[in-house]
Amino acid sequence: MVEALIIAAGQGSRLRKFYSPKPLAPIFGVRLLERIILEAKMAGVRKFKIVVGYKANKIKREIGNGKKYGVHIEYICNPEWEKGNGVSVLKAKGHMPEKFLLLMSDHLFDSTMLEKLLKYDLEPGHCVLCVDKNLEGDHFALDDVTKVWAENGHIRAIGKEIERYNAVDTGVFMCTSGIFEALEKSIAQGQYSLAAGNQILAREGRLNTLDVTGHFWVDVDNEEALQKAREILIRQLFKPTDGPISRTVNRRLSTRISAYLAQYNVSPNMITLFSFGLSMLSAALFFMANYWAVLAAGITAQLSSILDGCDGEIARLKFKFSTFGEWLDRILDRYADGFMILGMTFASWKTLGHDWVWLVGFLALTGTFMNSYTAQPYDRLLKKNLINGRQVRLGRDVRIFIIFLGTLFNQLFMVLMLLAVITNLESIRRIFVLRYGLQLEETI
Amino acid sequence: MVEALIIAAGQGSRLRKFYSPKPLAPIFGVRLLERIILEAKMAGVRKFKIVVGYKANKIKREIGNGKKYGVHIEYICNPEWEKGNGVSVLKAKGHMPEKFLLLMSDHLFDSTMLEKLLKYDLEPGHCVLCVDKNLEGDHFALDDVTKVWAENGHIRAIGKEIERYNAVDTGVFMCTSGIFEALEKSIAQGQYSLAAGNQILAREGRLNTLDVTGHFWVDVDNEEALQKAREILIRQLFKPTDGPISRTVNRRLSTRISAYLAQYNVSPNMITLFSFGLSMLSAALFFMANYWAVLAAGITAQLSSILDGCDGEIARLKFKFSTFGEWLDRILDRYADGFMILGMTFASWKTLGHDWVWLVGFLALTGTFMNSYTAQPYDRLLKKNLINGRQVRLGRDVRIFIIFLGTLFNQLFMVLMLLAVITNLESIRRIFVLRYGLQLEETI
Repeated sequence: MVEALIIAAGQGSRLRKFYSPKPLAPIFGVRLLERIILEAKMAGVRKFKIVVGYKANKIKREIGNGKKYGVHIEYICNPEWEKGNGVSVLKAKGHMPEKFLLLMSDHLFDSTMLEKLLKYDLEPGHCVLCVDKNLEGDHFALDDVTKVWAENGHIRAIGKEIERYNAVDTGVFMCTSGIFEALEKSIAQGQYSLAAGNQILAREGRLNTLDVTGHFWVDVDNEEALQKAREILIRQLFKPTDGPISRTVNRRLSTRISAYLAQYNVSPNMITLFSFGLSMLSAALFFMANYWAVLAAGITAQLSSILDGCDGEIARLKFKFSTFGEWLDRILDRYADGFMILGMTFASWKTLGHDWVWLVGFLALTGTFMNSYTAQPYDRLLKKNLINGRQVRLGRDVRIFIIFLGTLFNQLFMVLMLLAVITNLESIRRIFVLRYGLQLEETI
Repeated sequence: MVEALIIAAGQGSRLRKFYSPKPLAPIFGVRLLERIILEAKMAGVRKFKIVVGYKANKIKREIGNGKKYGVHIEYICNPEWEKGNGVSVLKAKGHMPEKFLLLMSDHLFDSTMLEKLLKYDLEPGHCVLCVDKNLEGDHFALDDVTKVWAENGHIRAIGKEIERYNAVDTGVFMCTSGIFEALEKSIAQGQYSLAAGNQILAREGRLNTLDVTGHFWVDVDNEEALQKAREILIRQLFKPTDGPISRTVNRRLSTRISAYLAQYNVSPNMITLFSFGLSMLSAALFFMANYWAVLAAGITAQLSSILDGCDGEIARLKFKFSTFGEWLDRILDRYADGFMILGMTFASWKTLGHDWVWLVGFLALTGTFMNSYTAQPYDRLLKKNLINGRQVRLGRDVRIFIIFLGTLFNQLFMVLMLLAVITNLESIRRIFVLRYGLQLEETI
């Protein structure tokens, strides 16, 4: 079981006027240090040592022994924190196992990056630094970030001021005790930063690189970077399996709502239930079967479809994900779909008087359910790139948008007909796509 | 990557008058040796060495290099196979890695038993034998099986004739080169059986035991045992997630049909499509909306429900499982459900003339789909024993049986009402069961 060492001893002077100390600065109601701990937990880390210095007691009081996060936390005090962060790392000597993760409290990252790092096969005495080769990104300030010159998986040069560089330092390391030896040397030379220790390791050919280009990470150095981190975290909420309406309309609105709601103590399941309530209101309005009620029903349906994204977004922004929450959302969405189509069928039948409206409603309901039923294996193959994701993904976002448009033009029966046709065609198409994708999966 | 050594050199004299050589004897169209290979493949084994002797060329010709099974097979010839099976094992000396599986071509087992064995942490020079502590089972003949006296995970005595024993030998081993040393000693003493080598290992405290009581295995020694193996394989087809009608009616009939069909070249997907065809015939008969047609529809529906089990059974009996086949079955079952309920609703509406029959049909369809939609997480928790399996599992077997009974008594609308109520109540109940089970899962 791997352990992580987190450096949270500095003052973070450039953020000081807003938050003090910096590791406790909140993003969407979750403090930087909490984000590091919870993200590392998602990658399987359960034991943490945190080096504290500036406002040590405040950090210890706020974060505690880790019980509330389901992990184990111990603190290492560094009264000499003002000298430099190399001194803080060196304080952990003797407290860490031979191999450990080294994380900075002001460098956010995603758990998949850590999972990749944890698989890295590190030689004794070496360290490995996650580096980003995308120098054009907006997730760091190029004039302020530590740059590296990487060659064949090793760092040749590292520093803020080096002239030749091809990657930047993400602040996420896996170390052996080699890091302590290097820091002892650099400190003996009167240099107190972690960067100085890294330069020694690099010179000795013991600082490896792991390319994590494309993974999320962000260096939170000042108020501007904090704002940028918020933006990037919001951007991360767009999912590869989002349908076209979700991507272009719903997600743009729901992420704003989520960013707002994240300030308050709103649980994902509360949002799920509220969105379900809106859908049922929409279904009830359809049953009234007059133009204005139907129009209101369509608008309410679209609103609930937008809000339907917020539960998952809040869960990810605030580390409140749960498998039950996900299932509750899915089950209630299916009931909402069922009652909305029932309401629409009733309204069409009341207006048109044809009995076969019911038949069309039945087919629309069956096709709608089938799309949801096949979504799980379909999306799994989509995420694994085993099937082509560029084709339009016909999901709930599209269906409800069609309903919304239909109510605007008072064409409820047309909408039912359209749903009955396209959802069932899509289901048949998915059978063939699944055959292709699942057979491909079994051969690899 | 672990390798397996399979001993298929003997004559199997007690089966000779039926099949020769024994490793090629078929059970449900799959030869004993093929079953060993395919079952081991399910546990992750991809490389096999097979020791052949009696009718070696016939075995090599039939089984080949493993390409058709997706594995790699090499053969080791033992012209001295008549001396005893210890000589056959010893022929593999120098051909195996330091740790390997040792399997007998006449001992069937299930892949979960092998998965358990593969996790066993074996000391250098030792061997471990899977033993069954259920001495009352019908999967072996007590007077013929090799017995063991096991104490603290080690075998104290082993043999067919020992007086004191508390377990029996399943014929499934994990070995190190220790087995070859022991066999060399026993052969030097003029004893040529594997049992003699095992006795030496046991005496030296180097033969460990792994308790696999409850796992499927069977020793196929004679025609009677072959018949018993067929029975036990059929018994294995009953699943813990089978509903009450499936367990007491459908599965009893479908396994007989599967045992019959397994003799022929019938693919699981062919059965899936045939069963789907029957369901659609049932739906069409419902649309005719007269008593005799409705009765025929009910009987056809129940028949298709019975046949619906055969695709999965054939897949398991003949190692023809595929994820796509499973999904095709599920998707077509949902369409069959949808069209049957539509047909029933139409017939009820035609007979009774009430418009709200459609409303009830809608609710029955929604509830039915919700039961299928929640089945996947529900059954997963059921299999992990995280939720109580003794409560009645309301699934497709029960729903179609209700439809069948309803048509017998010409009470189609009552059936729709009943389905609308119980399927939706079951869905609501499952939300609470899932909350309990999924939260429990996250804490362990």
